[in-house]
Amino acid sequence: MESKAQVLYDFSAEPGNNELSVREGETITITNPNIGGGWIEARNSRGDVGLVPEDYLEVNPPQPFTSGGSAAALDLSFFDSHVPTPAISVSTAPTSNGNDPWAAFDNNASGGVSNNWPAQPEGTETGKTSSNAWNSGGHGHPQAYQGPGAEDDEWDEEWDDVKSSGGYAESEAGEGGAMNRGGAHGSSMKISLNKFPGFSKSGPEVYLLSKQAAKGTKLPIYIGEVGPVWAYPDYQLDCVVADPKKGTKMYGLKSYIEYQVTPTTTNKPVNHRYKHFDWLYERLLDKFGSMIPIPCLPDKQVTGRFEEEFIKMRMERLQGWMSRMCRHPVISCSDVFQLFLSYKDEKDWKTGKRKAEKDETVGVMVFSTIEPEGLPDLDLVEVEQKCEQFNRFTKTMDDGVKDLLTVGNEHWKRCTGPLPKEYQRIGKAFQNLSSVFISSGYEGEAALTDALTAAGKTYEEIAQMVAEQPRKDLHFLMETNNEYKGLLGCFPDTIGVHKAAIEKVKEGDKLVAAGKINSSDKTSMSKRASTMSYSLQAEMNHFHNNRIYDYNRVMQQYLEEQVKFYEMIAEKLRHAHSRFTTM
Amino acid sequence: MESKAQVLYDFSAEPGNNELSVREGETITITNPNIGGGWIEARNSRGDVGLVPEDYLEVNPPQPFTSGGSAAALDLSFFDSHVPTPAISVSTAPTSNGNDPWAAFDNNASGGVSNNWPAQPEGTETGKTSSNAWNSGGHGHPQAYQGPGAEDDEWDEEWDDVKSSGGYAESEAGEGGAMNRGGAHGSSMKISLNKFPGFSKSGPEVYLLSKQAAKGTKLPIYIGEVGPVWAYPDYQLDCVVADPKKGTKMYGLKSYIEYQVTPTTTNKPVNHRYKHFDWLYERLLDKFGSMIPIPCLPDKQVTGRFEEEFIKMRMERLQGWMSRMCRHPVISCSDVFQLFLSYKDEKDWKTGKRKAEKDETVGVMVFSTIEPEGLPDLDLVEVEQKCEQFNRFTKTMDDGVKDLLTVGNEHWKRCTGPLPKEYQRIGKAFQNLSSVFISSGYEGEAALTDALTAAGKTYEEIAQMVAEQPRKDLHFLMETNNEYKGLLGCFPDTIGVHKAAIEKVKEGDKLVAAGKINSSDKTSMSKRASTMSYSLQAEMNHFHNNRIYDYNRVMQQYLEEQVKFYEMIAEKLRHAHSRFTTM
Repeated sequence: MESKAQVLYDFSAEPGNNELSVREGETITITNPNIGGGWIEARNSRGDVGLVPEDYLEVNPPQPFTSGGSAAALDLSFFDSHVPTPAISVSTAPTSNGNDPWAAFDNNASGGVSNNWPAQPEGTETGKTSSNAWNSGGHGHPQAYQGPGAEDDEWDEEWDDVKSSGGYAESEAGEGGAMNRGGAHGSSMKISLNKFPGFSKSGPEVYLLSKQAAKGTKLPIYIGEVGPVWAYPDYQLDCVVADPKKGTKMYGLKSYIEYQVTPTTTNKPVNHRYKHFDWLYERLLDKFGSMIPIPCLPDKQVTGRFEEEFIKMRMERLQGWMSRMCRHPVISCSDVFQLFLSYKDEKDWKTGKRKAEKDETVGVMVFSTIEPEGLPDLDLVEVEQKCEQFNRFTKTMDDGVKDLLTVGNEHWKRCTGPLPKEYQRIGKAFQNLSSVFISSGYEGEAALTDALTAAGKTYEEIAQMVAEQPRKDLHFLMETNNEYKGLLGCFPDTIGVHKAAIEKVKEGDKLVAAGKINSSDKTSMSKRASTMSYSLQAEMNHFHNNRIYDYNRVMQQYLEEQVKFYEMIAEKLRHAHSRFTTM
Repeated sequence: MESKAQVLYDFSAEPGNNELSVREGETITITNPNIGGGWIEARNSRGDVGLVPEDYLEVNPPQPFTSGGSAAALDLSFFDSHVPTPAISVSTAPTSNGNDPWAAFDNNASGGVSNNWPAQPEGTETGKTSSNAWNSGGHGHPQAYQGPGAEDDEWDEEWDDVKSSGGYAESEAGEGGAMNRGGAHGSSMKISLNKFPGFSKSGPEVYLLSKQAAKGTKLPIYIGEVGPVWAYPDYQLDCVVADPKKGTKMYGLKSYIEYQVTPTTTNKPVNHRYKHFDWLYERLLDKFGSMIPIPCLPDKQVTGRFEEEFIKMRMERLQGWMSRMCRHPVISCSDVFQLFLSYKDEKDWKTGKRKAEKDETVGVMVFSTIEPEGLPDLDLVEVEQKCEQFNRFTKTMDDGVKDLLTVGNEHWKRCTGPLPKEYQRIGKAFQNLSSVFISSGYEGEAALTDALTAAGKTYEEIAQMVAEQPRKDLHFLMETNNEYKGLLGCFPDTIGVHKAAIEKVKEGDKLVAAGKINSSDKTSMSKRASTMSYSLQAEMNHFHNNRIYDYNRVMQQYLEEQVKFYEMIAEKLRHAHSRFTTM
């Protein structure tokens, strides 16, 4: 059997590297998928064979050798709804490292950010992987392992497949790998609660006029030193996202990455695919989005030159997202978040999932669980003032953060582009002069020429240091600001819910006059707007507290690395200096 | 009396600075020439009064107030050939610091490079200055002071007038003041000895076939460790060029700068104008140019944004030129050079000048004074090989030096242009974010915002350091390489003389056959070519020795300043870092 592949992007072979030039839209035949390092060997229609970057291709399903008939790739939808037979699995899986996503569950110790993903793409070890996954249920049939009603879970959702396109999306940023720095995080939530065509079901009046008793865990608000604050748990939860492992399905035609998530509470790792994170995001958005800005997950469309880079970047951002969620007292204590971090087994996960999806205390109704403990009702003027103040602040901070990102992006480009080139040229010019001097034939030249060569090499080293430095310092400054850009982008929606509630309360008299509500409803609305304001203030205070911590930390990190960088340069130059002598 | 001035360059007034916009070709009236700092106050034809950079103007002679008639400026040639009457002198010289160029002779103590030139332009203190100068002779008439035959000396040679044009010749290099960095020194001598239309008087055959006995001081050549070497004096001469003083003539219409030159031997300063340096250069070129590359003087056309900058730069380069001449064993010991450095009085100078101008042992005849002490004659093959070797080396070094200059120029531009702007923007972005944070209204914000503001200011300081750094390090690297570029540019001419001599010797047999020379002449020619080769080798060894010293020194200087620069940045950042805290 041979696989065909569609070429997604033009690729120009480098001469002498055994590469094959291909053009977008071209169909090529894969002759050896086991090259490794992100390359596969392929043959084009003219019979030329060479290496092509795996990421530039969309591999079609393998097809039986036929002496005639249509060579068109089989329709993928066929595979979507059919379970592969073991025979096919075995024949397309000549090698296996046994990277079974679920079997790996207990083997992976927790730890810091790890680069422990396979160095070689293993898109061909699919049958074995798949059958292992299903076989672990005991009966050799996938359905036997999966819980009832979960049939579609692993098969139909393709949206977390590795999207590494291999395109040079960031080529303008110099040395590649800067990965969509400017727009890495989406800048607004998916919340639709702030669209209010009158008394729609999604407007804040659902809560303001609700007759229902509050359901779910209560969310108390206290008055702390800085004003209203959430109830913070005694133990600050955190987790480590690490150890990405590639899994495949459909005979390796589709691959996915599974991350190990280890909460600091249980220290027991759980595995999650990107789509699980996305599911969690959707749940959190549904449940808390009117009250708490839920930052988007790291962009699905993020592209990197190499798959490994892409995976590493996504993991780093998932880590950032998870840590931020862990630090939130309301989110971290929520059932759905706890489920995600510490489900016991597959069954527990499925059960919890269904429960979370059926949660009714979502949208604006989450405010019904707020309990401002013994706090006086706020009047509408104060509620409105606070809301305006937060709106102003988040808007100006958004501008400030974007400004810093723009400046950082330009600096990144200069540091990875023209600046190291210039240091390199200085280094070359010194070395060139040294070569000239060596040719003089004059005695007693060696000390100078050695020193001059060394100085030249030093500047070449500095060039490299300059080019590599942004990854060591600017990267974190950019990531943190990108995170804040994402977070700040959620505030207009969150604040919008509050503004809409304020408007509704203001309309109270009119609504009473029109007979749409009674005066008891009106009083209740006003009280509930006060409760909403307490929650917004608690959330803002949480935001400020985190912000102060985050910016202190990232500036420390940045400046520390900058100091090291300049000290290292000074040290290198001091050494170069010591080699010159004037008698 | 009021002076008119022609505007040489467009000048746009900066708002709020009391400046006057003027256009090239415009005639303006000087209302106050004593503003200082390179500015004068002027009135345009519309009656607007404001400050204009002095360098942007060509001042016309003062004219009597007339109620009518032509306002055209008086013809300058009138002043060129007429001695001003004391009456005019006094009326146009309301203030005077007594900066008499010759009277200053003994008052100026020697010392390092000094910026002791007048801070205020003193173009109007001219009559007094002039009359002082002439009066010091005793009779109030200039001729009384000047030696016989020196009538033209101070009056007709305008070529050393300050040429500071005020044009932004280097505006592309960023922050101005980079002063014609690339082409500061001429790249070839004025020597015309290498043009040989047959047996011309200027060809090397004048020496090769000379019947004259050698005149003048003998120049011995010895064999040292590195081969043939000049006789080096026991004491290494050097001198300090310092203390430029502005003098004026013709009622301040023309000004010149006089430099104090103090040799380390006598430690007694002598004063010289640029034209004296140029006279020395011409003498050295005439006398030694066939044997020794005589680098051009610093370019007359060098321009600077401000007169002070121009003067400082010229002085620095005259210092470099003089030090190089002092270090040369043949030049430093020559009568003309000794005269220049340590003439006793005006009379001594005039006498020596005339003697030097009458020196007959010039051009190729200088080789007749060479005495290779007891050294064997070199055969022509060896003579030619050496000549070729030096030609190759100086050519490749010329390329290497020009390459370094190109790279250095680009680095200069980046360091004074885009790079500091970027650091400034980073600094502003941090400070901007700090302002945003201050507006939060959140308590406990101060530590972070103070630290963030300080970090922002640190990056602004770094911006300034980056912009100023090239003047501290790259400047000397560029100046040294510019000097070498000038020096290397002389070699083709010097080597050309040798090549021409070699060709002549090769033609020996033909010349004998043609009856143009006899065989004794032929032998003599060959011997003299050998002598020439010894002098070239001695000169090359001198060049190499100096080169090794110069490049060791300049690289030490450069790297030392670079180390300081990076250490200072690291130190500043370390301080900025210390202000951030994560609890």
